[in-house]
Amino acid sequence: KPTFNNRDHPHRRYNPLLDEWILVSPQRAKRPWQGQLEKNHHEIHNQYDPDCYLCAGNIRANGIQNPYYKGVYVFDNDFGSLLQDEVGGVEEFHELFVIKPEQGINRVICFSDDHSLTLPEMAIRDIQEVIDVWQDEYTNLGALDYINHVQIFENKGAVMGCSNPHPHGQIWAQSSIPSLVVRTGINLKKYFEKNKRSLLQDYVLEEQRKNERIVWENSDFIALVPFWATWPYETMIVSKRHIKSLVEFTEQEKKSLAEILKILTTKYDNIFETSFPYSAGIHQAPTDGGLNAEWHFHMHFYPPLLRSATVKKFMVGYEMLAEGQRDLTPEQSAEVLKRLPIDHYKNKHK
Amino acid sequence: KPTFNNRDHPHRRYNPLLDEWILVSPQRAKRPWQGQLEKNHHEIHNQYDPDCYLCAGNIRANGIQNPYYKGVYVFDNDFGSLLQDEVGGVEEFHELFVIKPEQGINRVICFSDDHSLTLPEMAIRDIQEVIDVWQDEYTNLGALDYINHVQIFENKGAVMGCSNPHPHGQIWAQSSIPSLVVRTGINLKKYFEKNKRSLLQDYVLEEQRKNERIVWENSDFIALVPFWATWPYETMIVSKRHIKSLVEFTEQEKKSLAEILKILTTKYDNIFETSFPYSAGIHQAPTDGGLNAEWHFHMHFYPPLLRSATVKKFMVGYEMLAEGQRDLTPEQSAEVLKRLPIDHYKNKHK
Ligand SMILES: O=P(O)(O)O[C@H]1O[C@H](CO)[C@@H](O)[C@H](O)[C@H]1O
Ligand SMILES: O=P(O)(O)O[C@H]1O[C@H](CO)[C@@H](O)[C@H](O)[C@H]1O
Repeated sequence: KPTFNNRDHPHRRYNPLLDEWILVSPQRAKRPWQGQLEKNHHEIHNQYDPDCYLCAGNIRANGIQNPYYKGVYVFDNDFGSLLQDEVGGVEEFHELFVIKPEQGINRVICFSDDHSLTLPEMAIRDIQEVIDVWQDEYTNLGALDYINHVQIFENKGAVMGCSNPHPHGQIWAQSSIPSLVVRTGINLKKYFEKNKRSLLQDYVLEEQRKNERIVWENSDFIALVPFWATWPYETMIVSKRHIKSLVEFTEQEKKSLAEILKILTTKYDNIFETSFPYSAGIHQAPTDGGLNAEWHFHMHFYPPLLRSATVKKFMVGYEMLAEGQRDLTPEQSAEVLKRLPIDHYKNKHK
Repeated sequence: KPTFNNRDHPHRRYNPLLDEWILVSPQRAKRPWQGQLEKNHHEIHNQYDPDCYLCAGNIRANGIQNPYYKGVYVFDNDFGSLLQDEVGGVEEFHELFVIKPEQGINRVICFSDDHSLTLPEMAIRDIQEVIDVWQDEYTNLGALDYINHVQIFENKGAVMGCSNPHPHGQIWAQSSIPSLVVRTGINLKKYFEKNKRSLLQDYVLEEQRKNERIVWENSDFIALVPFWATWPYETMIVSKRHIKSLVEFTEQEKKSLAEILKILTTKYDNIFETSFPYSAGIHQAPTDGGLNAEWHFHMHFYPPLLRSATVKKFMVGYEMLAEGQRDLTPEQSAEVLKRLPIDHYKNKHK
């Protein structure tokens, strides 16, 4: 029988952050695609759109007018998934019918007043302003008694359920620690207690030694395709220092994160010369007042595109019932991302 | 402070099968939708399509000709995610880089030779033939030494990554038990050992007592919106008897399952008068030779549509990083599904 190699043979890889496996099928990349095509959103946006509810000075769906802001602007989501009101009592209780009220706050962050931009097209110093606001929000929301977790994320592109091209992200701050964060925390803690070191610190050191999946690194952060990545071009940005959250950033680290964010998202856009859709978000220490020494700042990028600007990977059927599955190997994706220029493709056409 | 009620207040519910929570935001159903619209696939298909690689007598992408089959037809997937070949040795080993070869077989099941049909439009006796084939495949694949799990599922509709409207499902049989099945098994087992009864049996009894989320039931099966459903119209079909897998079905149970499958999928089509997309699949005992006494046959339906035939729920951002989230409550969805007629909307227009 042939000797296993991960470029030809179906295999499973273990995700130590979520304690679960994914199925990798390198031999399947050749299958023809006759399924759904996504729209390639190539429209050029104006710097100001009178119909955009995020543009400065415009009136939102609930009648509130945005200020004539410049740069970053944060406000409470008008149609949030959470409410700040405390409610008492629980309707029913039974081992199989467990339900509890949840309190929280949803915030929207406009990354820029310029409607036409996206992160990769913004200047590094302007991305740094976004990071400043992430810090403030994490600190202020996290300081509230009833907020034990602050989830910072961005949905980019219509295919990722984003309903407005204006550059923006969201924050959902809430009283409970969400399931995937709890799970990640448990696994980080297990490793930390066993090895007395941060799981992600050890992981980054080993990735640097192997140098097979690194997309970019600067003095403070590394962007790589995780060994256990599930989405075709999934990546993770990890801080080189073992820091629990973004409040610990030095000024230098803030600049480095802004830089690597710009470079990684530019590479994404350059893969298919399109505004590359993704959901991205930060995993860091919960704000529950715990020690959380096992936590290590990192940011996940989950982009759906697979073969072109219009063919995405569908996480359906087997993936919903059994486990994640990918065709392209993480090493192949890292190779593609690594080789791409860090100059945005739109600059060529200017 | 107001007293909690699950129709007005944001809350979390616990999913005892996966040991995770979901966030429910009933107050959010009113938010306006300006995002991506899906295509409403209203084309009428012919009973035979010369370009379909699943129609009888046609030639598939790899040059193989389908037989002139009638009824159900099963064959090995030409572009499978798994291979039957055994491979030896593992390339690397490190606590954070765990990888192992995986062996398996992918099968495709055409539900009918008639290209124009879908499950809700098939006769009950023809759906029963599909169930016969599921039984045979589960038995025969499961009997192979190296197959420890057989995942039976269907992706329906372009929005669920299905590349061909010809009615068909898939089977992925493999040497490992996939992550979500392992997780479900652990939770079923915990309950079984503690209570000496099947979790799903107790759950069904309690749902019958409450009668708030039941969509349909016959003598042998119940279709309901789980208390912890994540997708807007997510449902589950559970056998009333505590049976581990579909090999234990009586003739009567096969007929009952065919009937409830037809009724549930018809109700789905009737919600928005469209061919309702979903991923559906069976969870049952692994074929690993274990006792698996805690397992209880059930089938999950994960449909993406939310407000209309063209507006789906996006499980992105918060959902990918934190936990599942829904607006409509499970009780509201069950109410909609329960009230819909069991006669297919297309019959009205005939
Ligand atoms: O096998 P198909 O129908 O070509 O492909 C579809 O179902 C598979 C199993 O759920 C998924 O892995 C694919 O992403 C999806 O497009
Ligand atoms: O809040 P938005 O952008 O309107 O909505 C989008 O992001 C949310 C958070 O990830 C999801 O729950 C929604 O399904 C998605 O459409």
